[in-house]
Amino acid sequence: MIHKQPVYANYAATTPALTEAVCKELRAYLMETHFNMGRNFEGLESGAIALRARRAVAGLFGVSACLRVIFTSGATAALNMAIHGLVRPGVHVLATSIEHNAVARPLEALRKAGVIDLGWLPCAPDGSLEPETVRKAIRKNTGLLVMTHASNVLGTILPATDCFKIAREYGVFTILDMAQTGGSLPYTIDDCCDIAVFAGHKGLGGLAGTGGFVLGERAVAEMRPWMAGGTGSASHSLDMPDFLPDKFEPGTQNTFGILSLAASIEEIIREGCETIREHERALTARFLAGLRGIKKAKPYGPLDAERSVAVVPVVICGHDAGDVARRLFEKHGIITRSGLHCSPLAHKTAGTFPEGAVRFSFGRGSTEAEIDTILEALDML
Amino acid sequence: MIHKQPVYANYAATTPALTEAVCKELRAYLMETHFNMGRNFEGLESGAIALRARRAVAGLFGVSACLRVIFTSGATAALNMAIHGLVRPGVHVLATSIEHNAVARPLEALRKAGVIDLGWLPCAPDGSLEPETVRKAIRKNTGLLVMTHASNVLGTILPATDCFKIAREYGVFTILDMAQTGGSLPYTIDDCCDIAVFAGHKGLGGLAGTGGFVLGERAVAEMRPWMAGGTGSASHSLDMPDFLPDKFEPGTQNTFGILSLAASIEEIIREGCETIREHERALTARFLAGLRGIKKAKPYGPLDAERSVAVVPVVICGHDAGDVARRLFEKHGIITRSGLHCSPLAHKTAGTFPEGAVRFSFGRGSTEAEIDTILEALDML
Repeated sequence: MIHKQPVYANYAATTPALTEAVCKELRAYLMETHFNMGRNFEGLESGAIALRARRAVAGLFGVSACLRVIFTSGATAALNMAIHGLVRPGVHVLATSIEHNAVARPLEALRKAGVIDLGWLPCAPDGSLEPETVRKAIRKNTGLLVMTHASNVLGTILPATDCFKIAREYGVFTILDMAQTGGSLPYTIDDCCDIAVFAGHKGLGGLAGTGGFVLGERAVAEMRPWMAGGTGSASHSLDMPDFLPDKFEPGTQNTFGILSLAASIEEIIREGCETIREHERALTARFLAGLRGIKKAKPYGPLDAERSVAVVPVVICGHDAGDVARRLFEKHGIITRSGLHCSPLAHKTAGTFPEGAVRFSFGRGSTEAEIDTILEALDML
Repeated sequence: MIHKQPVYANYAATTPALTEAVCKELRAYLMETHFNMGRNFEGLESGAIALRARRAVAGLFGVSACLRVIFTSGATAALNMAIHGLVRPGVHVLATSIEHNAVARPLEALRKAGVIDLGWLPCAPDGSLEPETVRKAIRKNTGLLVMTHASNVLGTILPATDCFKIAREYGVFTILDMAQTGGSLPYTIDDCCDIAVFAGHKGLGGLAGTGGFVLGERAVAEMRPWMAGGTGSASHSLDMPDFLPDKFEPGTQNTFGILSLAASIEEIIREGCETIREHERALTARFLAGLRGIKKAKPYGPLDAERSVAVVPVVICGHDAGDVARRLFEKHGIITRSGLHCSPLAHKTAGTFPEGAVRFSFGRGSTEAEIDTILEALDML
């Protein structure tokens, strides 16, 4: 039986619904623009939509040059592109022990192929990382540091700026995976971050199949194209163009998805990323406080809403995580995500591998009443 | 001034509009499904949409196992994935002299990196290719043949089956680029084709940002993942899963785009791909016949609608292609694409490099009246 008014607590996977403002634009595009073929001449319409979205992303993250915003099919493609674009054979790469498989799997494939050496920076069981750990791990041939901005399992916010400053001292390039923080944690991309990757369909509120990355100044010169193809520019040449954004955007873009992203980010900027962060922080604090009264529920992560995004993994003692998630859904209409959350490393770091946990994650649409419903349901388990 | 009723003759780039049936499903998804969070539990809804689309693609191309249908962000990503997934260091790769940059640029990058040897199969100036050319070009270390099904510049349909049979004799793997033929030229993917790549937003009538490939039996065992990331499966491992479709679909999929593709392909199957082909063939024949009466218009390609898809490049003697396209649009509202069409190789083969041509391309929505309007406009130039 599916509960009539579901409680969505799986924002870390995807936003459950587009806002009305975003839907309105998409419906208009479907009904009008897409049929107005005159505006399709040489793709002017899609170019204008992409430019609007680039400006929105640049505005949200405090980037001056919007042509440094590159769109991809999502954070996974962006991370693959960033990693392969910056890696050189023989280089030593560092990443944290709480990375998502979108980082861990491409790196592990490169290590297995003998292209890179790979070192995992040890995070504490709550996911936290001491910046000086970076300095200790850097070797002569260290060339790249890849780091999540916040763990998709534990919620832990990592000290990216401090870590990247240390990396910069040693000339090490840096990639920040903002999949869990874009749109829900205010952040200005600074000079120490060479590539910042974002997912479109989570905190940024766009459709699935969107995302991308922002290039810092150093990366513009260093990064090589990973995917190649037609760009509608420099078409005489069999090489990818060397200018932005074409250098990293071969093929026909997902204009409809990019429109959803533009409309949603503009709304987030109007609403204020700080306001969204405060909303999610308060809900997380309420959830953590409530969990303290439920004996069999053992939460993981920092257990401190100031130090985490709105993500809390919970183990119910004596119960399989998958069973708990199913019962929460079937009896109470509560939607969570159980298992390993595509991040075995984070679960190993926390000590919840291989059993996993039930992850509760909240977002802009979450309410105090929903938090209370979840707490009541957990208490009844 | 933009003409009030534009004539769209740029189907080879993208379909100008979704059909009403497709729009209806997308609007319903936006207004209902996407808000029905209960169906989002563990992504059941998006999995069901993807399965529906896999079945549609498999049905259209006569493939028995729909899990061999892999979705990507488009034909460009699919071609990169297919090429990198099948190439091994030191291998000799063959491709035709009319390939799109989506094939030529990835291959050229691999050649420049010293990974592969690369040979271009010489097509005739009209784009045609003698299958025995393949046999003559095969060397001891030839491992891969990549071939467009029809030229996006000249329209020429290549004898893929005959070429692939020869390749198969020598154990050479084969990739077919169906970007220009999927949905507008009936085709059953047979055993000689190891990977067939399709674009979602051209003849298949879906949204931009969709596409993928179909794996043949040999390729299932041989092809390696190129992009890595989370799959929501085998999450304990830092290796990509070895089962389909997960092996090649890391990250969150473009469900909305995939829904457009499912709905559109189902409609194409109902309408009959043969019917669409006949419609486009007849229009192309009418256009070619009309061009014979316009002295300054010099068309390229086979000049035979039986041997080509609905794509005809035209050079207007004494006029720059870009100027002609602009005048056609501004004076008559005719939308074409001028220049090199992301395929310098095809233009070199035809003898229209580097000036390029004005490409007229037709589709399901094109009419005889539109062909006549274009012919009149060309006559007035």
